[in-house]
Amino acid sequence: MMDLAQAIKQLARQTKAAARVLASASTVEKDKALRAMARALRAQKAFLQEQNQLDLEGARAHGLSPAMLDRLTLSDPVIEGMAVGLEEVAAFPDPVGEIVRMWRRPNQLLVGKMRIPLGVVGMIYESRPNVTADATGLCLKSGNGVILRGGSEAFNSNLAVLRVLHEALRGTAIPPEAIQVVPFVERQAINHLLECEEEIDLIIPRGGEGLIRFVVEHSRIPVIKHYKGVCHIYVDAGADLEMARKIVVNAKVQRPGVCNAAETILVHKEVAAAFLPLMVADLKAEQVEIRGCPKTLALVSDLVPAEEADWGAEYLALVVAVRVVDDFEEALAHIAVYASDHTETIITSDYQRSQEFLRRVNSSVVMINASTRFSDGGQMGLGAEIGISTTRLHAYGPMGLEGLTTTKYIIYGSGQIRE
Amino acid sequence: MMDLAQAIKQLARQTKAAARVLASASTVEKDKALRAMARALRAQKAFLQEQNQLDLEGARAHGLSPAMLDRLTLSDPVIEGMAVGLEEVAAFPDPVGEIVRMWRRPNQLLVGKMRIPLGVVGMIYESRPNVTADATGLCLKSGNGVILRGGSEAFNSNLAVLRVLHEALRGTAIPPEAIQVVPFVERQAINHLLECEEEIDLIIPRGGEGLIRFVVEHSRIPVIKHYKGVCHIYVDAGADLEMARKIVVNAKVQRPGVCNAAETILVHKEVAAAFLPLMVADLKAEQVEIRGCPKTLALVSDLVPAEEADWGAEYLALVVAVRVVDDFEEALAHIAVYASDHTETIITSDYQRSQEFLRRVNSSVVMINASTRFSDGGQMGLGAEIGISTTRLHAYGPMGLEGLTTTKYIIYGSGQIRE
Repeated sequence: MMDLAQAIKQLARQTKAAARVLASASTVEKDKALRAMARALRAQKAFLQEQNQLDLEGARAHGLSPAMLDRLTLSDPVIEGMAVGLEEVAAFPDPVGEIVRMWRRPNQLLVGKMRIPLGVVGMIYESRPNVTADATGLCLKSGNGVILRGGSEAFNSNLAVLRVLHEALRGTAIPPEAIQVVPFVERQAINHLLECEEEIDLIIPRGGEGLIRFVVEHSRIPVIKHYKGVCHIYVDAGADLEMARKIVVNAKVQRPGVCNAAETILVHKEVAAAFLPLMVADLKAEQVEIRGCPKTLALVSDLVPAEEADWGAEYLALVVAVRVVDDFEEALAHIAVYASDHTETIITSDYQRSQEFLRRVNSSVVMINASTRFSDGGQMGLGAEIGISTTRLHAYGPMGLEGLTTTKYIIYGSGQIRE
Repeated sequence: MMDLAQAIKQLARQTKAAARVLASASTVEKDKALRAMARALRAQKAFLQEQNQLDLEGARAHGLSPAMLDRLTLSDPVIEGMAVGLEEVAAFPDPVGEIVRMWRRPNQLLVGKMRIPLGVVGMIYESRPNVTADATGLCLKSGNGVILRGGSEAFNSNLAVLRVLHEALRGTAIPPEAIQVVPFVERQAINHLLECEEEIDLIIPRGGEGLIRFVVEHSRIPVIKHYKGVCHIYVDAGADLEMARKIVVNAKVQRPGVCNAAETILVHKEVAAAFLPLMVADLKAEQVEIRGCPKTLALVSDLVPAEEADWGAEYLALVVAVRVVDDFEEALAHIAVYASDHTETIITSDYQRSQEFLRRVNSSVVMINASTRFSDGGQMGLGAEIGISTTRLHAYGPMGLEGLTTTKYIIYGSGQIRE
């Protein structure tokens, strides 16, 4: 009998072989496959929900919270959302084959860069079973094989989604083996997957910081990740305070549990007295708890004093830290120390400072006069998003189809030899 | 007394802090620094050669070969070459701050990608002490701090180069601490360097396969590397055979000891009888040993039979493997199995097959009708080259100034909030 390590290795080898075929597939073939997959998900709704029921029963037996059960459920709208997601990816331009740039050398060689797939992507995630379809769509469109390993609580649901997608691929030019779900529930399977450095080109973990740290520690394969999002809004002297109020409320309140929600507001001392009482009233009206620096507390009563741990905290909740800064440089210095390289925004009417902020803050997304909530692949026009990277290598920021490719150099010669 | 691990960590922290200043330096400031460094190398030639003498004496005492001693020597032309290299990098366009692309979203948000430095690069190399100046120039121009760790046999020479470069930076806006040479000769220093994942963003090893494997195994930091170059030339049916002869000789003979030299020649059976005798005569005239497949041996006498190990061998010498293939697909299949993802070239007159070769071979450099020897950052117009990557993540192929940067997303808003 084959042991688990060998079984995973064989799965990875199959995926790699199929990914080579997928890498050369035409855009028409890939889009046809994506649309067939969307149709199959809709047609097989009953089967998906029946298999999902097995996971839901197990989850209830394990006492999972109602919120967790909700995430796990393949309801009608969730399945429709998966199908629509695949159709949207089909409608997006194919990144593969794009000539990024081309230039001619003095000896008439024409040198360019052509976009190609990465190879095989390993996805390790805790989230909802719809990720199984979403990640598959992005990988297929970008010509990459994918090996998916979801949470054990969604084991049957993920395998059911895979079965439906595989059947949909039967009538297409795409080999079904290019898409795999690890068919072993043991946690040790993750370790074996992370050792397949000959077959897998990139690992993307999605989930809590614990999962991500586990993956980074055990992987021999490059990992693209972000641990957390501690996003800052800096309200500059002379900022449009009405605009600042709307952006602060939107960035903190619209969806507080996500990584692009704002966690710290920095306010220039010149506008602090005029702005902070209004901002605090806005936020309190939305049930936000405000933790302020001493200068903030001096301007607005009834706030919680911020402690050192508040700077750099990712609350993911209706809590925000507020600090008054003496000037632009102090705001930049605060961001340099406490930011997580995710997203920072300046609210300003000053041309010079807007450009300085863009130039000197090297977070993965840097904004002027916009809500941090726009730091999102879909909102930024990258198509769907497979993850976010605060690793500076390869991808930095929201990672969509283009982030799932690399470029090779192509050279058109006419017999040149080197002197 | 501080131990070695702490000392390396402190060095890395200093470099990271200085790299933040360097990252915001203007092009004018960086180019001024590069030119000052070039002048200082020329002015301090006597000091450099005196320190280099210490290494040469040690190397002679250890019985290093004349070839190794030659590589280690900081002769007048080598020092002049280092100075000229720095001036050339100064003349190259600054990659930092380039807006790669920009687009407007339906809500009027203007989203773009701006090129930024990676942070701190760790270079681990065995080669000549001139790499110390070359790598420093590329890192400084691209706004990156650099920590250099050369071979122990060049220890005094590398520290001398650093001292001269540091003195040159005193009168400039660039903090000297952004450039460091590990001042400890112990091999264990490399291990400690590879553990500084908070301070160093990228490791580039340059040297033999043993060094590179050691680095990959011990690094917690992403590594950009290539193990070897097994470059193929495929001579297609209907190729211009005169062109093919010149390219084969150039790619094999012009500098056989480098990774972009050709190692295997694949020949379509339709041209084999006409081409192989001519090619063999050309190569034999240059003292090249030819190891042929059975079909090659049937067409040309007095050749060495190729064994399985010859396909995939990186000879780095005047030896070449030759195989006759039945068709284009068999050539692609051979390349898929044995190539090292470095460089492949097709010699063809057929439009369709030239495009198919570019599309389906996903090596880091893919050519039509040109010598593999052009697979080089300088020859391809990337400026000098800090390394070559056959890792598909981040950089793929020759890596110059652009490869030493990443992009951040920048967003120009006018008060947009997310619905």
